[in-house]
Amino acid sequence: MRRALALAASPDARTGPNPRVGCVLLSPDGEVVGEGYHHGAGHPHAEVEALRAAGGRARGATAVVTLEPCDHTGRTGPCSVALLDAGVARVVHGQSDPNPVAAGGARRLAGAGVEVVGGVLAAEAEALNPAWTFAVTHGRPFVTWKAASTLDGRVAAADGSSRWITSAEARAEVHRFRAGVDAVIVGIGTVLEDDPHLAVRRGGVVLPREVQPLRVVVGRRDIPERARVLDGAAPTLQVREHDPATVLVALRDLDVQHVLLEGGPTLAAAFVRAGLVDAVRWYVAPALLGAGASALGSAGINSIADALRLRITEVARVGDDVRIDARVLRAEED
Amino acid sequence: MRRALALAASPDARTGPNPRVGCVLLSPDGEVVGEGYHHGAGHPHAEVEALRAAGGRARGATAVVTLEPCDHTGRTGPCSVALLDAGVARVVHGQSDPNPVAAGGARRLAGAGVEVVGGVLAAEAEALNPAWTFAVTHGRPFVTWKAASTLDGRVAAADGSSRWITSAEARAEVHRFRAGVDAVIVGIGTVLEDDPHLAVRRGGVVLPREVQPLRVVVGRRDIPERARVLDGAAPTLQVREHDPATVLVALRDLDVQHVLLEGGPTLAAAFVRAGLVDAVRWYVAPALLGAGASALGSAGINSIADALRLRITEVARVGDDVRIDARVLRAEED
Ligand SMILES: NC(=O)c1ccc[n+]([C@@H]2O[C@H](COP(=O)([O-])OP(=O)(O)OC[C@H]3O[C@@H](n4cnc5c(N)ncnc54)[C@H](OP(=O)(O)O)[C@@H]3O)[C@@H](O)[C@H]2O)c1
Ligand SMILES: NC(=O)c1ccc[n+]([C@@H]2O[C@H](COP(=O)([O-])OP(=O)(O)OC[C@H]3O[C@@H](n4cnc5c(N)ncnc54)[C@H](OP(=O)(O)O)[C@@H]3O)[C@@H](O)[C@H]2O)c1
Repeated sequence: MRRALALAASPDARTGPNPRVGCVLLSPDGEVVGEGYHHGAGHPHAEVEALRAAGGRARGATAVVTLEPCDHTGRTGPCSVALLDAGVARVVHGQSDPNPVAAGGARRLAGAGVEVVGGVLAAEAEALNPAWTFAVTHGRPFVTWKAASTLDGRVAAADGSSRWITSAEARAEVHRFRAGVDAVIVGIGTVLEDDPHLAVRRGGVVLPREVQPLRVVVGRRDIPERARVLDGAAPTLQVREHDPATVLVALRDLDVQHVLLEGGPTLAAAFVRAGLVDAVRWYVAPALLGAGASALGSAGINSIADALRLRITEVARVGDDVRIDARVLRAEED
Repeated sequence: MRRALALAASPDARTGPNPRVGCVLLSPDGEVVGEGYHHGAGHPHAEVEALRAAGGRARGATAVVTLEPCDHTGRTGPCSVALLDAGVARVVHGQSDPNPVAAGGARRLAGAGVEVVGGVLAAEAEALNPAWTFAVTHGRPFVTWKAASTLDGRVAAADGSSRWITSAEARAEVHRFRAGVDAVIVGIGTVLEDDPHLAVRRGGVVLPREVQPLRVVVGRRDIPERARVLDGAAPTLQVREHDPATVLVALRDLDVQHVLLEGGPTLAAAFVRAGLVDAVRWYVAPALLGAGASALGSAGINSIADALRLRITEVARVGDDVRIDARVLRAEED
């Protein structure tokens, strides 16, 4: 299984919306007869790649795979059937398939007389694909809200100015984080006020459009024609809706698994109120303003007892600032 | 000098408003002939203690002292004169005396033919007495502002509730910090709203009155008769003024060198506006409110360019929270 996990994590696996999966086929005497991993949408699944490598030697073999084999016909046929056709005798898998559409592979295999062992190093296997797992389990993308505030929680000054609260190092880190998500969301208020670009830059250079996350603007007012988010450096979508759940469903349909919510305070408040913030990445600048917009607008919380509580996962100094990463505590997880 | 510094830092030196000072007397061949340190107000200065220990062997000796010998007659005579009377031939001192009233010892000694060398390990010597040095240099106490806010900078919820934003560990740490200052300041608004006790507790037990910092309430409205700050557990002073500078001068006259400003937002804003916050100790709780008072009220700052900037000196996780210690950047220090 360790080998299968390592295969899944191969640096050239660009799986896009698909999960990273690794597979090793072992002969009855423990010899490796085939290996494979998923290279991304349109490419064969890990099991199929391993079966091809093994050829006839797959008969009677044990398939060790990081994720329960799928039972679903998408761009490729179900892996469960491929394993059966090849005569595999035993399947050991890590994570169970959380996807209601694709799940059922283990059941089909067991029903056909294959010995199935699940849950082996399941946590490690799940950690390969946290956003994918979250999105298929919850039917919506994972939402990380990023804010950059002063100690007193302001994201803009009284005159509306907000460039720059945090240090260059913190801003560079935001670009690296953006590069790892599928979409970046802001409210139309932020677009009208700040005209942000929202494209990922590295060393000051805008990365190619193909690797850019989707830029999403939420709100009814029009995006000004000359707004930087409309420059074509990255795809842009306006959602003329206010309900965060509707926004996330629309993004789910576009295979978005992880979104970075970048404010402003009004949109962030709507997400908090709807219970649709899963984590925060907060940059605290050692500065005080005493006036200006607070990071979070009114979210319907009236007393300390009703505060939205989080659990800090990491604290780091970044340039002159402090970054606090935290997960929102939910009843089911406490 | 290292020995003199160690003497000054003796754990039983309770100097109160006086600086910690250590002194070593060396014979011409380098033998230690006397040592001393200042035990606190009413006790002899370090030099006098060392001279007593040395007796006649002080003649021709070198006095190594962490602070420039005083030239001032207070409860004790000037040390400069005591050293001259004892026939000391050479004085090596660390920090120069920042006190305009007490300074001049080095000059008097040199004028009388004693060889004087100053500034030896001066930074270490100054670090023995940071608050004393600040207070005598600036003619006012050093001000540390403590705040406990949510990530979005709120110190109270919409309904006014503020107990408890931070964890028990953070609150215990505040008590330990309070124990090291000379006065704790709050605005009358906080007293009326929260009825805080402001006395130092350790393990839940209120420490004896003699070791408690002064509790200071700033504002014109009366403190309610049954307010906890009037319970006698610690001395309490009301300053019926709004000007922070006036408050600090009043405290300076009471030998206060380090004050902990504990809010609320209105009083903190007055101190920020007056340029009278020197450092902050900020507890950030991983919680979001979206409404309620922000930690800092309007301090006359209109744009990001005018934000009060600080330099972080330490970041630590305390219980569930994050503590950020920072110093206010001033033009002269940048
Ligand atoms: N430092 C930071 O981290 C940071 C990040 C972002 C923004 N900011 C600052 O935030 C300020 C902008 O604040 P903002 O609150 O106006 O920005 P916003 O939250 O970006 O936009 C608010 C607008 O979005 C629309 N909207 C979308 N969903 C909504 C909902 N559920 N409820 C209500 N309105 C919704 C509304 O416009 P329609 O009526 O047109 O639909 C609303 O006026 C700027 O000063 C900016 O600098 C700071
Ligand atoms: N979490 C925390 O760290 C923390 C700490 C403290 C307070 N708080 C919260 O803060 C809230 C209280 O806020 P607040 O702003 O009313 O409290 P405040 O700053 O303690 O008190 C304000 C009052 O002090 C007087 N005052 C003194 N100097 C002043 C000046 N220079 N300018 C104006 N007024 C001055 C005024 O009363 P007069 O007119 O009578 O003079 C004023 O109304 C409470 O909800 C409390 O829970 C939170």
